Amino acid sequence: MTESQPRVLILMGSDSDLDAMQGAVRALGEFGVRCEVKVLSVHRAPDLALLEASRARERGIRVIICGAGAAAHLAGAVAAKTTLPVIGVPLESGALRGLDALYATVQMPPGVPVATVAIGGAHNAAILAVQMLALSEPELAERLAAYKRKLVEQVEEKDRRAQERLREDGLS
Amino acid sequence: MTESQPRVLILMGSDSDLDAMQGAVRALGEFGVRCEVKVLSVHRAPDLALLEASRARERGIRVIICGAGAAAHLAGAVAAKTTLPVIGVPLESGALRGLDALYATVQMPPGVPVATVAIGGAHNAAILAVQMLALSEPELAERLAAYKRKLVEQVEEKDRRAQERLREDGLS
Amino acid sequence: MTESQPRVLILMGSDSDLDAMQGAVRALGEFGVRCEVKVLSVHRAPDLALLEASRARERGIRVIICGAGAAAHLAGAVAAKTTLPVIGVPLESGALRGLDALYATVQMPPGVPVATVAIGGAHNAAILAVQMLALSEPELAERLAAYKRKLVEQVEEKDRRAQERLREDGLS
Amino acid sequence: MTESQPRVLILMGSDSDLDAMQGAVRALGEFGVRCEVKVLSVHRAPDLALLEASRARERGIRVIICGAGAAAHLAGAVAAKTTLPVIGVPLESGALRGLDALYATVQMPPGVPVATVAIGGAHNAAILAVQMLALSEPELAERLAAYKRKLVEQVEEKDRRAQERLREDGLS
Amino acid sequence: MTESQPRVLILMGSDSDLDAMQGAVRALGEFGVRCEVKVLSVHRAPDLALLEASRARERGIRVIICGAGAAAHLAGAVAAKTTLPVIGVPLESGALRGLDALYATVQMPPGVPVATVAIGGAHNAAILAVQMLALSEPELAERLAAYKRKLVEQVEEKDRRAQERLREDGLS
Amino acid sequence: MTESQPRVLILMGSDSDLDAMQGAVRALGEFGVRCEVKVLSVHRAPDLALLEASRARERGIRVIICGAGAAAHLAGAVAAKTTLPVIGVPLESGALRGLDALYATVQMPPGVPVATVAIGGAHNAAILAVQMLALSEPELAERLAAYKRKLVEQVEEKDRRAQERLREDGLS
Amino acid sequence: MTESQPRVLILMGSDSDLDAMQGAVRALGEFGVRCEVKVLSVHRAPDLALLEASRARERGIRVIICGAGAAAHLAGAVAAKTTLPVIGVPLESGALRGLDALYATVQMPPGVPVATVAIGGAHNAAILAVQMLALSEPELAERLAAYKRKLVEQVEEKDRRAQERLREDGLS
Amino acid sequence: MTESQPRVLILMGSDSDLDAMQGAVRALGEFGVRCEVKVLSVHRAPDLALLEASRARERGIRVIICGAGAAAHLAGAVAAKTTLPVIGVPLESGALRGLDALYATVQMPPGVPVATVAIGGAHNAAILAVQMLALSEPELAERLAAYKRKLVEQVEEKDRRAQERLREDGLS
Repeated sequence: MTESQPRVLILMGSDSDLDAMQGAVRALGEFGVRCEVKVLSVHRAPDLALLEASRARERGIRVIICGAGAAAHLAGAVAAKTTLPVIGVPLESGALRGLDALYATVQMPPGVPVATVAIGGAHNAAILAVQMLALSEPELAERLAAYKRKLVEQVEEKDRRAQERLREDGLS
Repeated sequence: MTESQPRVLILMGSDSDLDAMQGAVRALGEFGVRCEVKVLSVHRAPDLALLEASRARERGIRVIICGAGAAAHLAGAVAAKTTLPVIGVPLESGALRGLDALYATVQMPPGVPVATVAIGGAHNAAILAVQMLALSEPELAERLAAYKRKLVEQVEEKDRRAQERLREDGLS
Repeated sequence: MTESQPRVLILMGSDSDLDAMQGAVRALGEFGVRCEVKVLSVHRAPDLALLEASRARERGIRVIICGAGAAAHLAGAVAAKTTLPVIGVPLESGALRGLDALYATVQMPPGVPVATVAIGGAHNAAILAVQMLALSEPELAERLAAYKRKLVEQVEEKDRRAQERLREDGLS
Repeated sequence: MTESQPRVLILMGSDSDLDAMQGAVRALGEFGVRCEVKVLSVHRAPDLALLEASRARERGIRVIICGAGAAAHLAGAVAAKTTLPVIGVPLESGALRGLDALYATVQMPPGVPVATVAIGGAHNAAILAVQMLALSEPELAERLAAYKRKLVEQVEEKDRRAQERLREDGLS
Repeated sequence: MTESQPRVLILMGSDSDLDAMQGAVRALGEFGVRCEVKVLSVHRAPDLALLEASRARERGIRVIICGAGAAAHLAGAVAAKTTLPVIGVPLESGALRGLDALYATVQMPPGVPVATVAIGGAHNAAILAVQMLALSEPELAERLAAYKRKLVEQVEEKDRRAQERLREDGLS
Repeated sequence: MTESQPRVLILMGSDSDLDAMQGAVRALGEFGVRCEVKVLSVHRAPDLALLEASRARERGIRVIICGAGAAAHLAGAVAAKTTLPVIGVPLESGALRGLDALYATVQMPPGVPVATVAIGGAHNAAILAVQMLALSEPELAERLAAYKRKLVEQVEEKDRRAQERLREDGLS
Repeated sequence: MTESQPRVLILMGSDSDLDAMQGAVRALGEFGVRCEVKVLSVHRAPDLALLEASRARERGIRVIICGAGAAAHLAGAVAAKTTLPVIGVPLESGALRGLDALYATVQMPPGVPVATVAIGGAHNAAILAVQMLALSEPELAERLAAYKRKLVEQVEEKDRRAQERLREDGLS
Repeated sequence: MTESQPRVLILMGSDSDLDAMQGAVRALGEFGVRCEVKVLSVHRAPDLALLEASRARERGIRVIICGAGAAAHLAGAVAAKTTLPVIGVPLESGALRGLDALYATVQMPPGVPVATVAIGGAHNAAILAVQMLALSEPELAERLAAYKRKLVEQVEEKDRRAQERLREDGLS
């Protein structure tokens, strides 16, 4: 699978969101899926944001991931301008700690869905994007199956570490 | 004060929001302020919505009132495209009863304020719009002063009704 | 596009959820996407539920939609057993009115995403499923584009109805 | 635009709120709008607070901004005593982190609106005040237009910084 | 105990709150404590409200009960103008069902307490007022003791009714 | 298994809670577990309530189920006076719809647990009580196994009903 | 006013609550009102707690203040065993940050009020207790009037500090 | 009471939950009840988790304690696969601080209860497990009685510490 073109577009409202969204960039990298990251703001620079959304499909983008906090409109506005699947990551920020972002991202009106993941769930946004791409790419589907096996191994590894700690603490 | 041009623009996401937003239309009417009502949707018809917002100032609009429920992005998106003051009315709907709309309307990022009123507060949105217009129109300021006096009288009238009911119920 | 095999699987915890989930069945029908509906319960009949999830891919299912209320585990449990994209619809029920279902559906741990839509958002779950399928089916992508155009027309139609009502009420 | 008289009055309940409200003072300064800051308390010194509110208009004040936390009554009480537009800034404090202040500020009864901004949104309160003043001052309207262009540039600058960081981290 | 002067003042924002506050009037009547009911509004008629509060002590009032919904400022504003104990009853209304009123009533700043009872707890506001008066009136203290004994009897009576219903339903 | 003595004690604050708690009485009956129902109130008749709790063990009671709404203290107070397992059922009532009861029931301090079930979850309280009793009664364990099989059948039956309805509605 | 007997009883669930409740002890001291502090627990040592409550009146106690966190039952249980006024202070603790304590303290059933103050509002609990005692002690009423004047002075002092800081920061 | 076999099974989603769940291990140890700790994940390794649950009874396990955060499905999934009593401990994590885990654990559907304790209430989960085991083990019942006596002593000890601190601070 050679990837010259980015197929996932990751949008966020500020470069300060990069810490929270980095999990998505890394996870896509591990699946060999090229992505493009852009800082956009539907409130501060709406024309750029909507232009980006409306051009995404023709540029070869297949899935768009949007991370935003507070009155998080980015994912919804992008979904309004494209027929590509849009994944929303509510980001934790300010006094309401992301609950505002969760409501503003997930409670979309009929006709314009946003596939919402957990508050701060950038990693899962990437996995979800890969699952979508894998619908037509058997190789990605295989990598997902391998990834799922690794999840099982991680649980077993975590169990080993827990047993060890219990022994050290004299609790087993 | 002759008003040939509407100076307040009232936007809402659906004709079914008309019941909730009618209080704004009526209140503006009582102050002799012409308004224009439009059904727009930043999610279902984003280009129309943003075009409307960006043209409002040059068309003579001075204040924009937006009513929306759920992931209520309308006020925020309009505020992104204009420098006019934008008033947001979170509407009660669905399982979260307007709490989602309140968060999505009020928690705007720095640079793009939305003047948010109570959930379902269409009447107050109109009063706020009149207060803004009255900054440069002495006649409106006088009507606001008269309106405030009427509020006092209403309280006195409510007290009379309460005393009467208490007497009827043998509680005074 | 001839569809002999269902490609979307719609799961729900009870036949009483059918009213809430019917919007998904109808929307998929309008896009010509065959779906299969099953009542399953990860709490009352976990083996059946997990078996269904684990066999979905090989049976030709591409996307799974799960509707559940309260401690809504269905979508998460299904996502644990498949690498297909899983869409979760939190359903309104009981004292917490779907807020419990929203949290239980969207707050998934790293590695196992659920694409969550609004509380009661069955229609949008279907649109999201179609967007995923459309990634590899140009015909569906065209239908989505047509659907988006229809959304715009609906907004215009709603505006016409609002203007009419305002005239009837003497408010314009 | 020479400003000898303050036209915006910024009220807060304690000098300890100054950190949270400073954003409003600075933003007004950048727009060349003179403001006056006063510590007042509708609960601890109600007569002073209401006197201040009732005299504001005749003193030349055009817009009042009130910052308050917890059972935040300041904005509402001030709005009760003036027909000027009142902007409320709910401040984060204590166990409920500003949610109490948001509810107490925004849920005003019919007749007495408070234009509420985000929890901690002092900067936006100032922008909103400028938008109101700009309705009758073309020069301020131009500055708002310039401010909006700067917001776009800031987004572009943030994007540059994000790209740089991604390169440094080997993620692009 | 002859009561020619009302000693408890019950304030509420509207005659429509009378249904919710009637429980307080009735309970005081049962304890032989005279009360006076007034409709006041700290937002719509602030001068009257504060005048009433500031004159209460000299008029012989000992305890003030305030019922208010939404951004319920009445109790707090009254407490600001008197050193008498003020009891606040948050009333259920609108989309937030009294949670806004609870926060706005109970979260008072240091120095100005409001003795808050349950949402809709008008009956308990009266009992609390009687408990305060009983501190210096032994006869009221005796009535409270009798009232407490009646509460025990009511529980026993409720148990009898429950046993009967269980027998009728064949469940015991 | 002959049962002459009630082994489960079901307590509730009022006979009006009987509707909500009836599910527990019926479910225990189906498992052949005798129970005793009492109306008690830790707030209105605390001595009776605590006496009942402290005597429960010696009277042969094995598990206590407490249903209460609002500031639901019943389960916690009973748990303070017994070493028997206490199951709490938060009941939906009033403005906060049982969320207050859930918090007041589940958030017990270290040393005094209450086994809390869902808001309104009286049926599950009974099942949990049976699970506890079944730890030392093989016959009850068998009935639980049979009950679990019936849950599976119910799901299959619900699926049949759903398929039928889909056919009737022309949706399959 | 010579005070040999404590007239206010301050109860709390643990010595670790002393930090949060110290404000009440200090404030009562400033008013010359003697108080007694006891660590009690209605869940861990219910008999002691209820005995204390039931004996309070005859021991000369006039008002009881209870501070508790989480499933805060202390104030309610004490109110069940006395006809004295009981003031509840919900304490911030754990994951729900005192919201659980607020609900468990304020949402009392009819017949058994708890005068609830803000989360962490120990100082205000003391002021409220003094207001109750002052109903029959003119000297305390005078101290409250002086205290209210001091509150006004504090606001003026805070304003001075704010002006100074604004000058230092070049913002005025 | 010789215990060669673990009778309580403690499950958690990650070794990082060990800190939060250690209270359960220690408390069981103090009661001389052997337990077994396993890291399992119903989302990342569902087959292992369900196998563990379904085999627990035949392996001699009597009670299962599950600690999980966020969309906490572990306890519910385990309860679906066993007729043993299952105790759920919602763990604090992420933006929603355990409220998501509380809802996802406690709001189980009819037929499949989870005995839920406080957020982070691992210690209480152990006490509850001991209470269940004590139903058929008189020796454990005696230890619980002794434990309850110790709780009383702890309260008395805390009172002593509080009195001492008050003396040191000159507050008594």
